[in-house]
Amino acid sequence: MVRTLEIPTRGKGLHPITRHVQEVVSASGVVEGLCTVMVQHTSASLTIQENADPSAAHDLERWLDRLVPEDDPRFTHTAEGPDDMPSHIKAALTSTTLSIPVVDGRLALGTWQGIWLWEHRRHPHLRRCVVHVGS
Amino acid sequence: MVRTLEIPTRGKGLHPITRHVQEVVSASGVVEGLCTVMVQHTSASLTIQENADPSAAHDLERWLDRLVPEDDPRFTHTAEGPDDMPSHIKAALTSTTLSIPVVDGRLALGTWQGIWLWEHRRHPHLRRCVVHVGS
Amino acid sequence: MVRTLEIPTRGKGLHPITRHVQEVVSASGVVEGLCTVMVQHTSASLTIQENADPSAAHDLERWLDRLVPEDDPRFTHTAEGPDDMPSHIKAALTSTTLSIPVVDGRLALGTWQGIWLWEHRRHPHLRRCVVHVGS
Repeated sequence: MVRTLEIPTRGKGLHPITRHVQEVVSASGVVEGLCTVMVQHTSASLTIQENADPSAAHDLERWLDRLVPEDDPRFTHTAEGPDDMPSHIKAALTSTTLSIPVVDGRLALGTWQGIWLWEHRRHPHLRRCVVHVGS
Repeated sequence: MVRTLEIPTRGKGLHPITRHVQEVVSASGVVEGLCTVMVQHTSASLTIQENADPSAAHDLERWLDRLVPEDDPRFTHTAEGPDDMPSHIKAALTSTTLSIPVVDGRLALGTWQGIWLWEHRRHPHLRRCVVHVGS
Repeated sequence: MVRTLEIPTRGKGLHPITRHVQEVVSASGVVEGLCTVMVQHTSASLTIQENADPSAAHDLERWLDRLVPEDDPRFTHTAEGPDDMPSHIKAALTSTTLSIPVVDGRLALGTWQGIWLWEHRRHPHLRRCVVHVGS
C-alpha cells in the first residue's frame, strides 16, 4: 500500500510525523512488515530522533544551521534565495528515505524515537511524504 | 527482482542514475511497490537531490569537499591515496542505500528530485549499484 | 520475518554487525529479497563502511568527533551528560536505517563493505537493532 501525506510546516525546524505514518500503517492492515517513508523534496528531509525532550530537536537544528550557514559567498545556486542552497546541503546530510520494520501492526521504533520531517527553508511549506507499507 | 547496474564515473562529482533505476523498475513489471538502491562501495555514495539546475549539484559537491579536505594530517588511513579517507567520510555522511516507493510503475520521486551516484574519488571508476524491486 | 538483535558496545566507536545480520537472513530462508536494519536508539547509528583496514573506521570515528565536539557551550540538551547531544547529532548525520538487497541467501554487500553499529556514547551500552527480511 502506498499513501501520500501532506504535511504543513511552519518554517525551519523539526516537525513530528510519527502519528501520521502510524495511521498509514494501521490503515494498511499489515501486522508484520516494513514501512518506508520518502520526502518528495530536496530542501526538506527526514530523521529519526529523540521524541521526548524538545531541547534535543532544538540543539540539533541550531547545530546544523551553524554547520551550513546561509551567507557562504561561494554558493552559485542562489536564484531561489539565501536559504535554498543550505537547504539542499542539509537534506543531503540527513535522510530523504527511512525504512522502519512493523511489528504487531506498529512501527518498531525505540522508546525514545520519533519520525520527524525537517523543514530547511525559512518559510512555511506544504511537504509531501510518500509512505509504502509492505509485508 | 534484483539487478546490478554498472555505472562509469568521470571522477569526483554527482552522476545522474534515475533513468537507469527506472529501467529496472519498468523491467520488473511492478506497478505499486518499493525500489531499493544500494551502492556496493565505501568511497562512493547515493543521494536524492535537485535534478534541474546543475549549480545545486556543483555547490553541494564543493561544500562537502571543503568540509572534508584531503590534506588532514590526522588521517592514518592513507595507503590508498589522499582522496581515499575523505571519500569514506563523505560516503558515511551521505547515503549508501535509498528506498523509493513505486506508483503506477514509476519511481514516486518529487518533481525536482533525481537519484545521483556520488563519486568521491578523484579518478574515474566503474561503480556497481544493486537494485531491488518488490511489491 | 522480523528479529531483534541485542548488541553490546564497548563505548564510542564502530562495532561490526554484518555476521549477526547475515545470521538473520540465513534463518529467514529468503533467497532473493531485501534486508532492512534499524537501530532503536538516537545516540547510536548504523553505517556501511570499509571492513578490511581498521584504520578507516578509526579515522572516521575521530573525524566525526572533531566535527561534533562535546564542549559546545551552545547546547541546551545537557541533562544526560556532555556526550549525549553530540551523540544525537552524529546519529542524525549518519544512518538509523539501512536496506540491503539479498541475493542467493546472502547480503549483497560489496567486497569491502561491512555493516557497523556506531556507538556515540562514551560508556558501553546494550543496543537493539530490528532486522526485517522480506522477498
